[in-house]
Amino acid sequence: MTIDTAISELSAFLGDRLSRSKSDLDAHGASETWYAPAPPDAVAYPESTEEVARILAICTAHGCPVVAFGAGTSLEGQTSAVAGGVTLDFARMNKVLAIHQGDMEAVVQPGLTREELNRELRDTGLFFSVDPGANASLGGMAATRASGTTALRYGTIRENILALEVVLADGRVIRTGSGAKKSAAGYDLTGLFLGSEGTLGIITELTVKLRGQPEAVSAGVCAFGAMSDAVETVVAVIQMGIPMARMEFVDADTVRAVNAYSGTDLPEQPHLFVEFHGSDASAAEDAARFGELAAEVGASDVRTATRTEDRTALWTARHHAYWACLGLKPGATAVVTDVCVPISRLAEAVEETRADIAASHIPGPILGHVGDGNFHAILLVEAGNEADLAEARRLASRMAERALRMGGTITGEHGIGLGKLGYMEAEHGEAWAVMGEIKRTLDPAGILNPGKLVRQN
Amino acid sequence: MTIDTAISELSAFLGDRLSRSKSDLDAHGASETWYAPAPPDAVAYPESTEEVARILAICTAHGCPVVAFGAGTSLEGQTSAVAGGVTLDFARMNKVLAIHQGDMEAVVQPGLTREELNRELRDTGLFFSVDPGANASLGGMAATRASGTTALRYGTIRENILALEVVLADGRVIRTGSGAKKSAAGYDLTGLFLGSEGTLGIITELTVKLRGQPEAVSAGVCAFGAMSDAVETVVAVIQMGIPMARMEFVDADTVRAVNAYSGTDLPEQPHLFVEFHGSDASAAEDAARFGELAAEVGASDVRTATRTEDRTALWTARHHAYWACLGLKPGATAVVTDVCVPISRLAEAVEETRADIAASHIPGPILGHVGDGNFHAILLVEAGNEADLAEARRLASRMAERALRMGGTITGEHGIGLGKLGYMEAEHGEAWAVMGEIKRTLDPAGILNPGKLVRQN
Repeated sequence: MTIDTAISELSAFLGDRLSRSKSDLDAHGASETWYAPAPPDAVAYPESTEEVARILAICTAHGCPVVAFGAGTSLEGQTSAVAGGVTLDFARMNKVLAIHQGDMEAVVQPGLTREELNRELRDTGLFFSVDPGANASLGGMAATRASGTTALRYGTIRENILALEVVLADGRVIRTGSGAKKSAAGYDLTGLFLGSEGTLGIITELTVKLRGQPEAVSAGVCAFGAMSDAVETVVAVIQMGIPMARMEFVDADTVRAVNAYSGTDLPEQPHLFVEFHGSDASAAEDAARFGELAAEVGASDVRTATRTEDRTALWTARHHAYWACLGLKPGATAVVTDVCVPISRLAEAVEETRADIAASHIPGPILGHVGDGNFHAILLVEAGNEADLAEARRLASRMAERALRMGGTITGEHGIGLGKLGYMEAEHGEAWAVMGEIKRTLDPAGILNPGKLVRQN
Repeated sequence: MTIDTAISELSAFLGDRLSRSKSDLDAHGASETWYAPAPPDAVAYPESTEEVARILAICTAHGCPVVAFGAGTSLEGQTSAVAGGVTLDFARMNKVLAIHQGDMEAVVQPGLTREELNRELRDTGLFFSVDPGANASLGGMAATRASGTTALRYGTIRENILALEVVLADGRVIRTGSGAKKSAAGYDLTGLFLGSEGTLGIITELTVKLRGQPEAVSAGVCAFGAMSDAVETVVAVIQMGIPMARMEFVDADTVRAVNAYSGTDLPEQPHLFVEFHGSDASAAEDAARFGELAAEVGASDVRTATRTEDRTALWTARHHAYWACLGLKPGATAVVTDVCVPISRLAEAVEETRADIAASHIPGPILGHVGDGNFHAILLVEAGNEADLAEARRLASRMAERALRMGGTITGEHGIGLGKLGYMEAEHGEAWAVMGEIKRTLDPAGILNPGKLVRQN
């Protein structure tokens, strides 16, 4: 009962779709952020649910770890094969299986990326709304409970997945949910697998909700003298029920980074980037009401746009923010934080975080999905510089503790992976033990993404 | 280890807050619909989470069944004490613990009803959106994954509960979720307990999302020559992205019942009842766009209203529909069905159901939340008439099978209780076994609402 015997069996079964090439192992053990490489012992490229089921049955029989891999864009080391074993790369399970236009649903395989899905939908008048920034795979987005800039209006992945097909550790294949928009038929297993980061089962098919492409889109950008004014605007807008499609905050540091990176000339102040979806009339009305509210709290430099190219130009600063921030410290890698707090504590949380970062020796621009109370500091560390990394982790730790103290969560959308494991007990207390009990029930051999999410024995 | 010894211990602990009076037992063993009375052996009235925890620890130690009870408005026998034991009545845990206006959240106890909560919110400009019709308790709504007429715009209970406090079978108290609007911090235990019908744990506190009261509300009613035209309108409206607050369907039988019950004079045809929330301008624009779409497919007798009293009058037919339907057969009780199908199959599902009922000897008006693909036939049976009941169950069974065949679910919002247990295997296959595994992990002694939701041993 070893990894090696499992791999021998898998190799006989999958032939050249089980790779042990160094480049493959390295590519699958790498992290998008600062985590140390942790390559698997082999990479499997399954082509069907049946193959995944057989792989898992073999791995359970031999106690071989299994890590699911989509586009590799997770930020907390979710795909690191810290216990070795086999990585399941879904590159060959990346099809759109069905588009049900009348039902506004699509059935897809986990390796499909969200941009690929939206390309396929281009002529249907529909789109898939969840947009975490990266061109992530749908399977990965489901497994990490992704959200992003449009969650405010259309919800996170949790509100946009209707059904799943999942292979359990022992090779059983189950279906959760249905094609109906809602159900009260027993435990919400769909919801249980969303955000389980490959520790409870492997997602092999997803039924996703689609949205009608809005008739009209308008966008706006405005600058504020203080971050708290931006947040005050956000709160007012939400309470008024103005249906914002996106509402993004960037701090002065981020604006400075973007001006340098993209050649824009935004004032180096906190900004809100907003977008409205609706009819011609409602999108214009919403934009006007937003503008009034922002002006009341002293917003300046308000710019708006409705034509696609103008909107794209307007939002450039936000779209390029992550790469622009990395450019603030050449050769740097990022410790990306991801706290989410009740809106009433948002201004305080961001201000305290900004003060913390200002007092440290590393740069850390702040940006976020403020309508949800979710923000990130992009803490920039020189690769291999232990002092930088220690400082970034100290700052990240203080952010997590602050979020919990304010009634929030250690992660709004990036998930646990390796990076947040240390705070799970603090956030969940005994509920974390319950997560472990569920994990052991569904994966008694502990083969599914070991080292992640639940308490390690 | 018996129910009696548990009750003795509970009696010593709770004093006169443990009732064994016949009227109390009968009231808690009764069903809102057709299920046979199944009274518990005792009714406990806890006043705190700590008391609930101690009660559960005692009941686990003695193998005594525990059934949670809110307002008793569930429709599938969820609160029937089919194995006896103790019913926990949350009448004394019915407080609003906090209203966080800036965060648009409230923290409440499970015994509070939704109407009580909305009364408390009256002066805040906020409201709790989930409206299943009955004045259900929040704990019960959470436990049965309730939804209702506003789910289309504001979501079901699943999208409106942020956090829970839950007492587990062994007396451990856990907290799930947080005050943040979203989180990716591990398994979604909040979602797992929503819809678990008291079989996994007892909810003792809920953090609920509130919504801003819309500046303007407009309403409309229109008649269609055929049900399929009404559904065609629904599909068009959703695809256009018109943000409907409510969109309800009633069939010609329901209209006839309402006309008789409420003295209205609606044409005896299929109708849609719609409501729009927004600004003055957007609510009016949405109503106008809806009217155009409905007219295109031949809607007639379109009536609209914006003033509160006019809207209320307009919606009378829908609000009174359930009682009006019961009036079709004096002295009757109802077998209330609750299927939900993909929208593209809705017309077909309703037509087949209507034809089935027309060929039977019992009346069964149809109405539903068509924007979600969810509809109910109110199958009227004479109390004690076995032939009526057998026929109603045959029709209900055909509806459930039809919904599954069309890719839907056996229950959109009423839950499993006693009534849908027989279809769980058909809907979920092996996933139902997984539900049982989770149940046994969290409640190994099987004390929590035995006889419900999972496979019975």
